Amino acid sequence: MNSKKRGVFLSYLRVGLIGYKFMGKAHTQAYKNTNFYFNPKEPFQLRAICGRNEENVKFAAHTYGWESYETDWEAVIERDDIDIIDIGTPSDTHKDIAISAANAGKHVLTEKPMALNVRDAKKMLKSVTDAGVQHMVSFTYRRVPAIRLAKRIIAEGRIGKVYHVRANYLQDWLADPQAPFAWRLDKNVAGSGAHGDLNAHIIDLTRYLVSEFDEVVGMSETFIKKRSIEAGSTNEEKTNDSASRDVTVDDATLFLARLDNGALGSFEATRYATGRKNNEYIEINGSLGSIVFNFERMNELQFLSKEDEPHLQGYRNILVTEPEYHEYMDAWWPPGHLIGYEHAFTHQASDLAQAITQQQPIYPNFEDGLRCQQVLEAVDNSIKSRTWEKVEKTNYLNL
Amino acid sequence: MNSKKRGVFLSYLRVGLIGYKFMGKAHTQAYKNTNFYFNPKEPFQLRAICGRNEENVKFAAHTYGWESYETDWEAVIERDDIDIIDIGTPSDTHKDIAISAANAGKHVLTEKPMALNVRDAKKMLKSVTDAGVQHMVSFTYRRVPAIRLAKRIIAEGRIGKVYHVRANYLQDWLADPQAPFAWRLDKNVAGSGAHGDLNAHIIDLTRYLVSEFDEVVGMSETFIKKRSIEAGSTNEEKTNDSASRDVTVDDATLFLARLDNGALGSFEATRYATGRKNNEYIEINGSLGSIVFNFERMNELQFLSKEDEPHLQGYRNILVTEPEYHEYMDAWWPPGHLIGYEHAFTHQASDLAQAITQQQPIYPNFEDGLRCQQVLEAVDNSIKSRTWEKVEKTNYLNL
Amino acid sequence: MNSKKRGVFLSYLRVGLIGYKFMGKAHTQAYKNTNFYFNPKEPFQLRAICGRNEENVKFAAHTYGWESYETDWEAVIERDDIDIIDIGTPSDTHKDIAISAANAGKHVLTEKPMALNVRDAKKMLKSVTDAGVQHMVSFTYRRVPAIRLAKRIIAEGRIGKVYHVRANYLQDWLADPQAPFAWRLDKNVAGSGAHGDLNAHIIDLTRYLVSEFDEVVGMSETFIKKRSIEAGSTNEEKTNDSASRDVTVDDATLFLARLDNGALGSFEATRYATGRKNNEYIEINGSLGSIVFNFERMNELQFLSKEDEPHLQGYRNILVTEPEYHEYMDAWWPPGHLIGYEHAFTHQASDLAQAITQQQPIYPNFEDGLRCQQVLEAVDNSIKSRTWEKVEKTNYLNL
Amino acid sequence: MNSKKRGVFLSYLRVGLIGYKFMGKAHTQAYKNTNFYFNPKEPFQLRAICGRNEENVKFAAHTYGWESYETDWEAVIERDDIDIIDIGTPSDTHKDIAISAANAGKHVLTEKPMALNVRDAKKMLKSVTDAGVQHMVSFTYRRVPAIRLAKRIIAEGRIGKVYHVRANYLQDWLADPQAPFAWRLDKNVAGSGAHGDLNAHIIDLTRYLVSEFDEVVGMSETFIKKRSIEAGSTNEEKTNDSASRDVTVDDATLFLARLDNGALGSFEATRYATGRKNNEYIEINGSLGSIVFNFERMNELQFLSKEDEPHLQGYRNILVTEPEYHEYMDAWWPPGHLIGYEHAFTHQASDLAQAITQQQPIYPNFEDGLRCQQVLEAVDNSIKSRTWEKVEKTNYLNL
Repeated sequence: MNSKKRGVFLSYLRVGLIGYKFMGKAHTQAYKNTNFYFNPKEPFQLRAICGRNEENVKFAAHTYGWESYETDWEAVIERDDIDIIDIGTPSDTHKDIAISAANAGKHVLTEKPMALNVRDAKKMLKSVTDAGVQHMVSFTYRRVPAIRLAKRIIAEGRIGKVYHVRANYLQDWLADPQAPFAWRLDKNVAGSGAHGDLNAHIIDLTRYLVSEFDEVVGMSETFIKKRSIEAGSTNEEKTNDSASRDVTVDDATLFLARLDNGALGSFEATRYATGRKNNEYIEINGSLGSIVFNFERMNELQFLSKEDEPHLQGYRNILVTEPEYHEYMDAWWPPGHLIGYEHAFTHQASDLAQAITQQQPIYPNFEDGLRCQQVLEAVDNSIKSRTWEKVEKTNYLNL
Repeated sequence: MNSKKRGVFLSYLRVGLIGYKFMGKAHTQAYKNTNFYFNPKEPFQLRAICGRNEENVKFAAHTYGWESYETDWEAVIERDDIDIIDIGTPSDTHKDIAISAANAGKHVLTEKPMALNVRDAKKMLKSVTDAGVQHMVSFTYRRVPAIRLAKRIIAEGRIGKVYHVRANYLQDWLADPQAPFAWRLDKNVAGSGAHGDLNAHIIDLTRYLVSEFDEVVGMSETFIKKRSIEAGSTNEEKTNDSASRDVTVDDATLFLARLDNGALGSFEATRYATGRKNNEYIEINGSLGSIVFNFERMNELQFLSKEDEPHLQGYRNILVTEPEYHEYMDAWWPPGHLIGYEHAFTHQASDLAQAITQQQPIYPNFEDGLRCQQVLEAVDNSIKSRTWEKVEKTNYLNL
Repeated sequence: MNSKKRGVFLSYLRVGLIGYKFMGKAHTQAYKNTNFYFNPKEPFQLRAICGRNEENVKFAAHTYGWESYETDWEAVIERDDIDIIDIGTPSDTHKDIAISAANAGKHVLTEKPMALNVRDAKKMLKSVTDAGVQHMVSFTYRRVPAIRLAKRIIAEGRIGKVYHVRANYLQDWLADPQAPFAWRLDKNVAGSGAHGDLNAHIIDLTRYLVSEFDEVVGMSETFIKKRSIEAGSTNEEKTNDSASRDVTVDDATLFLARLDNGALGSFEATRYATGRKNNEYIEINGSLGSIVFNFERMNELQFLSKEDEPHLQGYRNILVTEPEYHEYMDAWWPPGHLIGYEHAFTHQASDLAQAITQQQPIYPNFEDGLRCQQVLEAVDNSIKSRTWEKVEKTNYLNL
Repeated sequence: MNSKKRGVFLSYLRVGLIGYKFMGKAHTQAYKNTNFYFNPKEPFQLRAICGRNEENVKFAAHTYGWESYETDWEAVIERDDIDIIDIGTPSDTHKDIAISAANAGKHVLTEKPMALNVRDAKKMLKSVTDAGVQHMVSFTYRRVPAIRLAKRIIAEGRIGKVYHVRANYLQDWLADPQAPFAWRLDKNVAGSGAHGDLNAHIIDLTRYLVSEFDEVVGMSETFIKKRSIEAGSTNEEKTNDSASRDVTVDDATLFLARLDNGALGSFEATRYATGRKNNEYIEINGSLGSIVFNFERMNELQFLSKEDEPHLQGYRNILVTEPEYHEYMDAWWPPGHLIGYEHAFTHQASDLAQAITQQQPIYPNFEDGLRCQQVLEAVDNSIKSRTWEKVEKTNYLNL
């Protein structure tokens, strides 16, 4: 960059990113596109990206446009030219990195799920609170414009008292019995299967849009208990010990819930819903109206109002692409020009920049991450106990 | 009728119908339209319709085209010019009428739910089995052509091993707190609320298309516990004892299930899903494909096949209106000309006529009705026990 | 019928139906269902059905429930126990039957297209006007509840000034080159192909909902010029004179139009739109809103209002099944219970009964039929002249 | 950039971009994202951006990340550190810039429509052909993955012989009579209205997917002939000469076409289709199948195959997001994670990079731009002549 030729900004938000794969890529574009599309007061600077494999992280630094790279995350945290630590690594590493970063006075953004369990999540929340830094969990779907619109519609009182939440997160990449083993199927590495990966999102959306959870009862299943180590080399029947591994996470987890506001909820996460690719669906029915969202059509929101004249009531399909009227859309294109998956990451980064610059709180924060973890854990408990379980309600000010 | 002028048929199926309201109307048109559209070997004769209010039943007999009317159901059963007793009255009357009819050697068709409880359903099944008459429960949705096609697709092995069933039956006529009290909200009369009325249908479809049920866990709620007796005269807050009545049935019942074939199921029935009018939805995900049906678009079936080439896979929206290829449709109109709600009643009547004429079994029969009742009751038990309950498995040959 | 037992009505509307095939069946059910569902003051009596083949018409009379049959349409018209002549025969017969019926003082309902050409249509209009009888053309789609709702929305001013009409009627039964010759492909019998059969409907809907036509320019094509006489026996390449016949009607006709109100219109009828079965589509865009209807989802109407708040605008999908709020639906089932193709025929018959009983005009009448014919003919002229043609505007009071 | 620290690439594609507004932004992100997501052999270098207003272009250079800026497009062309001239300015400037760039031996990418008229387009084509440089017109919709899939399906012979093309490009930003005057409504600046802006796209898609055009007949309208100069300050009726300006372009243009392959086409472009935001719709019906695309759901493609078994035929909704199976998608996210409007620009830039590096031709090139212009002009001619007009067929090798 040759910034002198083009004017000088007084200050930057200097980021160190831990992890360079799927989430590393998504977060990198978010910082760059915040600068490009959102003109933040303090733009991001991509100071350092970190990964254990030097060759790979070096290549990523070059391709993604980071100023430097590191192979040791503690080195990143020690650097005094970095303000924000962004954690895009697997879940089992979140706790240590986040606590170290907080102790070093850095702001912390972490991928979801925040932690492997409630105990760790509490420690993380305590550390960022004690340090007084900004903290955020990357539940990016909150910043899809259609979800933002849903929030607004509900806040405007347009659906009245909520009776029902009906939410699924359906994928299908394991429906094929021949699909090979992957690290996500190992509980030691992944922490959880569909439950932690997918239910976490619809729990967060429910908390964001409707209510906290009161009690839950769930079930889960691992349909295919062993998978071949190499793709296509064996099939379900023929696998032997040397060529296959045990799947130790859930393939699907379903649960029913009673929410604090009295609404009933039905939730399902699976990787076996053939033909559903990233079908994050949430429907909310209230006394005055209903809302439906499906991530596979993420630029649309359905809304039905009982306040419309009776002969004209029906689900409206709102194309949430109006620069003037729909949040975030004035940064992008004219009406009817869709945005995609990664844009919500940019919205998140843009909001984070603003929150840091203006020293205001930002959500979802580590408390949101913890509360989500508490719901996940109550479901796990109910699966073991085969009965309803209350969701733990921590006094978050007194951890 | 001036049948001599137009030729003589050797024999008829002579029907006595108990009940003349919603279901009486639907069943009457079914008999007439079977004769009109399906040319059965033995057409139906509309011998007698029965109701307690003489003025009303007389008017119904005239308008609907019944040859005579009765005000006492036992009189209908005693008549020797009647072969089939069709029960379209509220659930609490089914048992007595059905058993009497069977004892009199009549074939019996009853509306659903078959009985108020498992105990009664067993007695009914025993009586028709002992009498050797034809017996049928009016789960008409089995005879929607799109459901027939779903059955065929599954039977052809096109979706492989089933992993998931996701079924809802959503209505909204109680979402308005001002909606007045109705007899359906009185447990003594109705037996059950959304559970018996709506879950019964999606349980039956699941049994028909996928598998028997193994175990269940459920929840239910009555959101509005009192309703005004006269429509619009009072509101939720102002109701007093003289002007309102307790709602004694469930407004909504949800449950999770494990099916005998290992699939996981999620079920929900509610009358509070604002904007959903008669949204009976069932989605089935298998290892090779998926199927989706929604009664609000009852002429369509969605089907996804993993056997399609990978770049071409997607949910097909099949318009199930091809006279040549879709069951029942050759009796109606050219392709793309939709049929409606009542047509499934006609299909049912037509199949019943054929079964009686050919002395072959017909489904869903009283055993199907009983099995549905057993699932309903297991859910009720789980709501009380707050834990999973096994679904009773009767030895149906040895009641 | 044993009407004495059930009370006596003072008078009936006594029908004679010419034609017993597709339309004969659809019209018969309309009369019966009007009596069954709509309780008309003067119910229909099915006096006589007429066809040239005695065996067939006798069977139809029996199956459909007509009191008698005739093999000569003039005999029907001569009968003094008949009030209404219903013409369900091919187009080339409409003129003579209608004029005879009018001269005999009968009310006349005719299938569409009303006539083979404008000249004949004018004669027919003159004869019914002179005779002072009721006259109606069976453009049944006007009586689909969703179209009724569209009319109401427009009449309420909700879409403002209309800019665009975009209408297609797409079928696909000729897309297969192997499909055999049929009488509909012979101009001498059918009069016209897709144009008269399908464009007639969307022209009528446009006239009903929006405006008369000012001028048009069109094109048409017969893609496959010869078809084998027997199905499957030959293919396109191998046909020889003895085994194939020339197709003498249009397979597809498209045209552009300028309407009297200044709106622009695009129209297309084809039997070659693979996968479209009965896709009658009309979209209307106005300054304040838009409307979309598709007959393949005939129970739904889409409506967008610019008077909704800007962040909430979107096409509403109205399920047009509310007994309280949507025309005709109180005669049928509860909300969300669909109706089908033939129901619009029943609505038409019910309205005809009421118009005759109350001696009020009914639409679409023979003037509507003539105006539609004038648009069809202007398009034909423009195809020949390869330029824009004005639509003839008759002084209908001075034929 | 600190490229030494991260390894050195041997060569770059060095871009000079003329224009910095909507298209400048879209093209800039395309170059950056090609480098970021597509790892081209020779990455793009953003050498210079050009605009007449120095303050604005300087800010754009900074925000977008260009190394330098210029205020005179000729200066950009003179620079010897630039390989590619990208023209993102209004249509009236394309000719001079493109010809100068070609003469200077630069590769040229221009926004659409390529030129103001056929004459200019021919000159541009001649200049790039003579110079032997790469030339491309930015019809980006060709590189939407769903359109790519449509192309593949057709190339695989899956829809057989094409009978019909039905294409609309519907927007609504002028439907409001109060919308103020804008430069796009001035023919001197914009060249054309909806026709050149929107029909250009669907003509190009039709040429790409189906066939060249043979003859056309069209109509157009300017519904609102004057608009206020300042937004909201006046209304349609009250405008006076000083406060309003004449709209000199078409609001809507429709046309019918006969294609070289014998198919019939219907085309419509409008800015008055209330509720349609960027509704670029194309439906293609062939003897073996059909395809439907709508840009408002740009990640989906509908495909119907008559080669499916008859009871299973229906429009498949293919979610075109499979990294393994759908073109370009391996550069982005996992299945079911949507992409947006700007991604097609990135695909275009990535393909351009590859074509230049490998010295292979790229499409759509200036010949495609010219052919599109010839169709547009034939429609304009037919509007004047009120009759069918042949589309000019240039011998492109002998301009």
